[in-house]
Amino acid sequence: MGTVSCQISMSLDGYVAGPEQSRQDPLGRGGLRLHEWFFGLDAWREQHGLSGGEHTVDAEVVEEMTRDVGAYIMGRRMFGDGGGRWEPGWRGWWGEDPPFRTPVFVLTHQEREPLPMAGGTEFHFVTEGPRAALARAREVAGDRRISVAGGADTVRQFLAAGLLDVLQLHIVPIVLGAGEPLLAGLGDLRLAQESVVAGPTVTHVTYRVLR
Amino acid sequence: MGTVSCQISMSLDGYVAGPEQSRQDPLGRGGLRLHEWFFGLDAWREQHGLSGGEHTVDAEVVEEMTRDVGAYIMGRRMFGDGGGRWEPGWRGWWGEDPPFRTPVFVLTHQEREPLPMAGGTEFHFVTEGPRAALARAREVAGDRRISVAGGADTVRQFLAAGLLDVLQLHIVPIVLGAGEPLLAGLGDLRLAQESVVAGPTVTHVTYRVLR
Repeated sequence: MGTVSCQISMSLDGYVAGPEQSRQDPLGRGGLRLHEWFFGLDAWREQHGLSGGEHTVDAEVVEEMTRDVGAYIMGRRMFGDGGGRWEPGWRGWWGEDPPFRTPVFVLTHQEREPLPMAGGTEFHFVTEGPRAALARAREVAGDRRISVAGGADTVRQFLAAGLLDVLQLHIVPIVLGAGEPLLAGLGDLRLAQESVVAGPTVTHVTYRVLR
Repeated sequence: MGTVSCQISMSLDGYVAGPEQSRQDPLGRGGLRLHEWFFGLDAWREQHGLSGGEHTVDAEVVEEMTRDVGAYIMGRRMFGDGGGRWEPGWRGWWGEDPPFRTPVFVLTHQEREPLPMAGGTEFHFVTEGPRAALARAREVAGDRRISVAGGADTVRQFLAAGLLDVLQLHIVPIVLGAGEPLLAGLGDLRLAQESVVAGPTVTHVTYRVLR
């Protein structure tokens, strides 16, 4: 079976989004700074259909984490919050050619037909919770990796249910002071450090989640 | 002037001690696990007058962080909490031969004569706050480094006052869920990553504090 992994940028004080998240500002106040390290990378630009960009060790980390992913899982807000129920025809906020290029399983309470997009991405809507989403992702991914893309509440659900094998943190040297804590409410979670990559401005640490 | 630095072990969720800290259990529930990575090291054992132990890259980090320290600064509880006022004759909980071997400036509200110990450690008690403690530490340290030893509240006071140059975090792959957060209440603190050392079980990241 493929590894179930998550990679996410976290501030030094443990937040993966700033305070006052909203539909207009889904990363919260200051939250964009969590992601600045990868916007200039060639790997990120290529994923989003752009040319140029820098090729640093960070780019290799981004390439590695998207390589051989057979399916993604994400929360409803990451697909594209519609404020309560989605309007008919709402296609999420990733545009017509989302960067996933595989099936994406969206955790939601709203039943909905699959939504094929350009470039190989197909959104599937799962109403039976994380375990069901994982089972469906495994069907399409086979031995390839399954990436839990976020947001934080989805990652926490997978951690709490013991469904995550690998957690890669991009540790960003900022302090947000408030916001969405990644690892709150999980009880006694133990991890084992597997590998460390020092980027120019952030540290990438890969942990195996111990059961 | 010597660099003012702090090195401290932190859980992935940002705690430097577990919940329910007390005089009997100053590290709080689970807090001892933050420090397990260094108890077996030769460098730690030597500092405490013991022989043997492992020499890993962690040991080199410990050696580096104690090298060329001209003075330490610590909070009253780290010297040895007496529960309110110290009893006459209370000499702290570091034993007669503390591992510092330099002057140590203890932040307290209780005036007290300097306390010389074996091995070169001399405790001085400073009642005028962090800035005064730092000035006195600079007098004795000259160009050597000044280490802010802890606890978390003392480190936060130094960060809040802009008195810390370097923060080295030993990032320990445990989640404590509650306890003493290192970086809470500091507002918009920015740091720049300077160096990363991957130990066998923890990651050591050195940050420069930006003003």
